[in-house]
Amino acid sequence: MTPEEFRRRGHQVIDWIADYREHIARHPVMAQVSPGEIRARLPAAPPEQPEDMAAVLADLDRILLPGISHWQSPRFFGYFPANAPLAGVLGDLVSTGLGVIGLSWQSGPAITELEEVVTDWMRQMVGLSPAWSGVIQDTASTSTLVALLCARERASGYAMARGGMQEGAPPLLVYASAESHSSVGKAALLAGFGRDHLRLVPTDARQAMRPEALAAMIEADRADGLRPAAVVATTGTTATTAIDPVGAIAAVAARHGLWLHVDAAMAGSAMILPECRPLWEGIEGADSLVLNPHKWLGVPFDSSLYYVRDPEHLVRVMSTNPSYLQSATDGQVKSLRDWGIPLGRRFRALKIWFVLREQGVAALRARLRRDLENARWLASEVQATPQWRLLAPVPLQTLCLRHEPPGLAGAALDAHTLGWAGRINRSGAAYLTPAQLDGRWMVRVSIGAEPTERADVAALWRAMRAAAEEGPGEAGLGEAPAG
Amino acid sequence: MTPEEFRRRGHQVIDWIADYREHIARHPVMAQVSPGEIRARLPAAPPEQPEDMAAVLADLDRILLPGISHWQSPRFFGYFPANAPLAGVLGDLVSTGLGVIGLSWQSGPAITELEEVVTDWMRQMVGLSPAWSGVIQDTASTSTLVALLCARERASGYAMARGGMQEGAPPLLVYASAESHSSVGKAALLAGFGRDHLRLVPTDARQAMRPEALAAMIEADRADGLRPAAVVATTGTTATTAIDPVGAIAAVAARHGLWLHVDAAMAGSAMILPECRPLWEGIEGADSLVLNPHKWLGVPFDSSLYYVRDPEHLVRVMSTNPSYLQSATDGQVKSLRDWGIPLGRRFRALKIWFVLREQGVAALRARLRRDLENARWLASEVQATPQWRLLAPVPLQTLCLRHEPPGLAGAALDAHTLGWAGRINRSGAAYLTPAQLDGRWMVRVSIGAEPTERADVAALWRAMRAAAEEGPGEAGLGEAPAG
Repeated sequence: MTPEEFRRRGHQVIDWIADYREHIARHPVMAQVSPGEIRARLPAAPPEQPEDMAAVLADLDRILLPGISHWQSPRFFGYFPANAPLAGVLGDLVSTGLGVIGLSWQSGPAITELEEVVTDWMRQMVGLSPAWSGVIQDTASTSTLVALLCARERASGYAMARGGMQEGAPPLLVYASAESHSSVGKAALLAGFGRDHLRLVPTDARQAMRPEALAAMIEADRADGLRPAAVVATTGTTATTAIDPVGAIAAVAARHGLWLHVDAAMAGSAMILPECRPLWEGIEGADSLVLNPHKWLGVPFDSSLYYVRDPEHLVRVMSTNPSYLQSATDGQVKSLRDWGIPLGRRFRALKIWFVLREQGVAALRARLRRDLENARWLASEVQATPQWRLLAPVPLQTLCLRHEPPGLAGAALDAHTLGWAGRINRSGAAYLTPAQLDGRWMVRVSIGAEPTERADVAALWRAMRAAAEEGPGEAGLGEAPAG
Repeated sequence: MTPEEFRRRGHQVIDWIADYREHIARHPVMAQVSPGEIRARLPAAPPEQPEDMAAVLADLDRILLPGISHWQSPRFFGYFPANAPLAGVLGDLVSTGLGVIGLSWQSGPAITELEEVVTDWMRQMVGLSPAWSGVIQDTASTSTLVALLCARERASGYAMARGGMQEGAPPLLVYASAESHSSVGKAALLAGFGRDHLRLVPTDARQAMRPEALAAMIEADRADGLRPAAVVATTGTTATTAIDPVGAIAAVAARHGLWLHVDAAMAGSAMILPECRPLWEGIEGADSLVLNPHKWLGVPFDSSLYYVRDPEHLVRVMSTNPSYLQSATDGQVKSLRDWGIPLGRRFRALKIWFVLREQGVAALRARLRRDLENARWLASEVQATPQWRLLAPVPLQTLCLRHEPPGLAGAALDAHTLGWAGRINRSGAAYLTPAQLDGRWMVRVSIGAEPTERADVAALWRAMRAAAEEGPGEAGLGEAPAG
């Protein structure tokens, strides 16, 4: 494709995206296809000869779009908000268009330096002290894996340079609550600790880790000759946005020399609001933390920020320095390849830079406050309505709720819950994700898509009541778009 | 940013990229800035109020562009080709514009299904049997880490579900040549094997792993009661594109029950040419392999393909299944979150799909053959020129060479080599990366940027002769662009 053709086709794609975003509410929010349906419409073999770009774009509409769930829709209340503001789309476009790879500072100096600047901007925005240094990773799963690798090496006296996890010393242990994200357990297992050495700390009635239980477990394990190495606290768990008490956990970690990693993937965005910062009070006592601007804050995925207090230790664990990556400027510059797992690096700082400049921090704060207000409004509606129940506190923008008709319990209640949520999803009117809490199904309403206004939340509430209170008929779903 | 503003600004960004690519040769190929120079031009604090997009785009030109090394330039001969064809830029733009996240099949069915299709297209293109299943990872570093994690778990009988690497059984070992990529050693260390358990297998005069040396090391280690677990073979090493004998290594691995991972990150692209496939003969005997379409083949970074023969084992090692990710369609569909480390997933298959359809496989083959022919031409020029020496075979598109004036050796020769390569890089005429071979500096010429034609290679050759033969003066560099 020549630059001239790119100009023509590029304008067309930009217009396609503009139209898509403008009319996104016309689509059913959750894709309405069956497994295998998209694949069956695609050729089994690659094209030998070039095809016209017009055909590719037509297939995008005809074949792929029905297989998209619309995360940018105002009626998207599933999983978590993953906002991709249009300014960020442009920032990412510039990155791909430049096609520059950050292998080292020299291979693209602006990649390293803009990343230093925007991660420091974000540090200031969420109220962290200058003791923190940040780097962009792809996801919180990767950030948490990096954190546990660093914890492992600090606790073992850098055993990776010797016998690794196979040294046969008393086992290292990791602690997290049962409400922690699945990526925490996965990271512990991938880092080689073993499931036997992953301790699930009990939680309280608000699904928050109990620090005195943590302390007791650590003491018992130490008495058994084991080596407690790391604890992962969560600011905003996935199921219920529960808030582990970071300060109390940090005190326990400090007393016993554990690495404290804080998973604030979701709730970290909220820390641009000073009134939310008490939720992670004590954060300065952590060793590492992750927060994902690609969630609620709104930088196009993937943009996960990993902050550490001791970058030298991080670099020691992650460094590589073969000759083809050496240059005369080494030592004067950061080598971000030594701050994570991948060697190659996209110019991801650009999309953060575009979003922060185009929106400004004040507007970001206003948008997040709008969402918190919408969540409070829906919570009060739910609480005021017979047979509806909030199942967990609402510290942020996620509600956990259930419709509990008299006489329904156990498996029958589960069937009812999954039934009405499924009917809404299949109607296309909105997208909700059910999840389990204390062994029973409930429905999460995660508010915070960029275009979601009060009217959208109110429409969701009407749709939920219709779907749950009027039973399994589809008739009540007046909200379903033509889609 | 409203869709209408996005339309206007988006056209502008598209035009900016079109202009950039059209006139890319005007820029010095290697960024000519000093450490800290870019950062110093950027504000230390984030903007409180929104800024006009025009200011952001102006800063892109004024502040950031001087800090870009131009990987898409026809005179880029550094590291490896990392082509970002414009059709792929559009594919990636659609992905970012949709803003859809693949957490599960249901969260965006087309993400999973198009990824299945294009990884299978690529499998066919490189001549692999249908026994292989593929998935997109970010980089080869990550793919190789995943491979060694899978090897670790197969060899240990899935110890991650018990005591992990801390079970205290005889240590597991990993084998690779000293010419293997830095990511192999890094992966072994991160996976917990420990540096004591990473064996560097000797290479032959062509920098290829010696399979009989591998066999002897494995036998000696087994005799010592240790547990050989994995071997990593490389098809196209980073320094010299050396080719490990995959078939012979596979035979050794099979005899001793080792996991064989093949790092074909660079040379994998070449396998779309049937005449290159003898280079990885025996590949069907491997357990896993990685190849990076984001290198020579030309899909915008990041797009690393990881193929395995036993996807069930991969999923067993990588799986997570919390309730909020469950849906009614589980079991009928692939959950690609269980095929790698991150949970979230960009719609990266789109850029592969756009490139393959817009270019067609025949044109990709023609482009790669052009580059091989250019490399052969330059190799013959170097060989025919007094004082110039090729230091390694040229199986693909990378030349390793040196200018060796009479009487220069040792550190003085190193200084000469780094001197003339540095003068070319600082002139902006071309970008070359020096590297070490057998403890001495040499210069790698990596041919294969999408716009690189014979004339560009000839110009590089003139610039190299001028820079090396005429000594340290800058005068000989007539190729330096105005930029």
